[in-house]
Amino acid sequence: MSEAELVRRLIAIGWRGSRAVRLGPGDDAAFLRGGLVVATDLAVEDVHFRFDWITPEEAGFRAGAAALSDLAAMGAAPEGLLVSLAVPDEPKLAEALQRGVRDAGDRVGVAVIGGDVSRSPGPVVMDVVTVGRARTVVTRGGAEVGQEVWVSGSLGGSAAAVAAWSAGTEPDPAARRRFTVPPDRIPLGSGLAGAELARSMIDISDGLVCDAGRVAEASGAMIVIDRDRVPVHPGAALDLNLALEGGEDYELMFTAPAGAESRIVALAQEVSVTVNRIGWVEEGTGVVLRDARGRRSIPGRGGYDHFPSPGSRRGR
Amino acid sequence: MSEAELVRRLIAIGWRGSRAVRLGPGDDAAFLRGGLVVATDLAVEDVHFRFDWITPEEAGFRAGAAALSDLAAMGAAPEGLLVSLAVPDEPKLAEALQRGVRDAGDRVGVAVIGGDVSRSPGPVVMDVVTVGRARTVVTRGGAEVGQEVWVSGSLGGSAAAVAAWSAGTEPDPAARRRFTVPPDRIPLGSGLAGAELARSMIDISDGLVCDAGRVAEASGAMIVIDRDRVPVHPGAALDLNLALEGGEDYELMFTAPAGAESRIVALAQEVSVTVNRIGWVEEGTGVVLRDARGRRSIPGRGGYDHFPSPGSRRGR
Repeated sequence: MSEAELVRRLIAIGWRGSRAVRLGPGDDAAFLRGGLVVATDLAVEDVHFRFDWITPEEAGFRAGAAALSDLAAMGAAPEGLLVSLAVPDEPKLAEALQRGVRDAGDRVGVAVIGGDVSRSPGPVVMDVVTVGRARTVVTRGGAEVGQEVWVSGSLGGSAAAVAAWSAGTEPDPAARRRFTVPPDRIPLGSGLAGAELARSMIDISDGLVCDAGRVAEASGAMIVIDRDRVPVHPGAALDLNLALEGGEDYELMFTAPAGAESRIVALAQEVSVTVNRIGWVEEGTGVVLRDARGRRSIPGRGGYDHFPSPGSRRGR
Repeated sequence: MSEAELVRRLIAIGWRGSRAVRLGPGDDAAFLRGGLVVATDLAVEDVHFRFDWITPEEAGFRAGAAALSDLAAMGAAPEGLLVSLAVPDEPKLAEALQRGVRDAGDRVGVAVIGGDVSRSPGPVVMDVVTVGRARTVVTRGGAEVGQEVWVSGSLGGSAAAVAAWSAGTEPDPAARRRFTVPPDRIPLGSGLAGAELARSMIDISDGLVCDAGRVAEASGAMIVIDRDRVPVHPGAALDLNLALEGGEDYELMFTAPAGAESRIVALAQEVSVTVNRIGWVEEGTGVVLRDARGRRSIPGRGGYDHFPSPGSRRGR
């Protein structure tokens, strides 16, 4: 069973509808009456990170920043974090993880307001709860035909670091830093939401193609991505496949009305983030990649290999 | 390092104060502006439960009910749960855990509004986030000299079940049920808070003596408990030590003004919960036990064994 299918089943088991809840499970966060936005995000040792790759402080920072990314994707402003740590009986390790999460909170101006800690005989498990506020939220379901597709920052750096570690080599420093320090997109996300420029939004945690597919599914539309417009992170050595399929970028993908380009670019400049228009929304379903000659292909397991990027063809 | 000391250190690392936060970490839940109450509670396989003791559905229910107990102890009304599951690659197991948590939510009328799931190479780790509302909350710090100490239900049943399993025997059915089905004290907790009868409150998760000690510490006062008044769960076979020191009862201990007895009993009857007055608040620090002759003793590691209960003296 795929993770996506498991998530669907878990949601079907747990969700009943509720007067108190304006948006239930299935998006980046839940949205409750009173403007409360809440999400939770797991980081598991040897699944999401390894201690022979990064330090406990870095693992904590990463977990905290990744969790906050869910709030950014809703256009919410954070108010606090809660941290649950299931850890071996090593207080110093727990304290280092907590310092890392704390630092991720500090970066966006919020404290750790609660949590839990337990001894565990297994790997370190961190669950970071993010609590924030928004007047309205931007969901995955707002993409409409004619809108344009945008992405913040650049993609693939984090996956490049993982690929290097997995191959037994040290990653490029820029790629390593991308893995250990996910970007803060709270100002961009809340700015886009407040100005009603973003009509759908998601944070890219499982790869651009995968997360674009979630927006397409939630919106009942097709997302077309111009391969040549996808910004590849410097640490990914021009490998477009890493940018398309690699995960844990924690950048934002959003759709916006056509003609909003100058306002979007101005807003992004205000918060010192680069943005790129990478595609548009059409009638249909799923995600389609388009090359420079206008030829279309459907990405998938290995499907993207039929159209190797310049970076993966040459030079390596 | 004790768990209490580790918790103190983690709080010191993470907490900074915040305008958005009316009550930070260190109580049963955090309290934010807008009346939001939020807490998180870990349940770790082979630490909090074992699958040769209970089923996955029971483990999920227990985790959900234990998490909701934190809201009860604040006097808050729940609005939703979020469930993070770090589990082996067994979808059926994850679904069974989710059904259990869902059922605990159903019991108090709330749904699972979000969460996360990850494969894990280790034991099952569940983190249940509870979100609720309250106008004001009842903290651990409101005990004052002259108030009386009350406890809901009866204590020691859960610990009796764990003791039986640990000895390789099957627990008494009532004790087993106490472990698998923590009580719902939301109506009592919110009733006591709403009527301003409870001035301090905590849920008994680590044993009456331990949790009373937390209230004493947070309030800067001494809690005196009449040993003979402590209600022992039928499944605990009159073993007062289990009631005093055994954990995971998920009953409420609260302090109330003297003279409120009739109102408290009436309110408890309305929600079909028994309550017992077991002591009072004095000047001083810590927790003191008082026997029928008025002799006082300080409980502690093994200290309570100096005053064995009738149940542990005779008959076994």
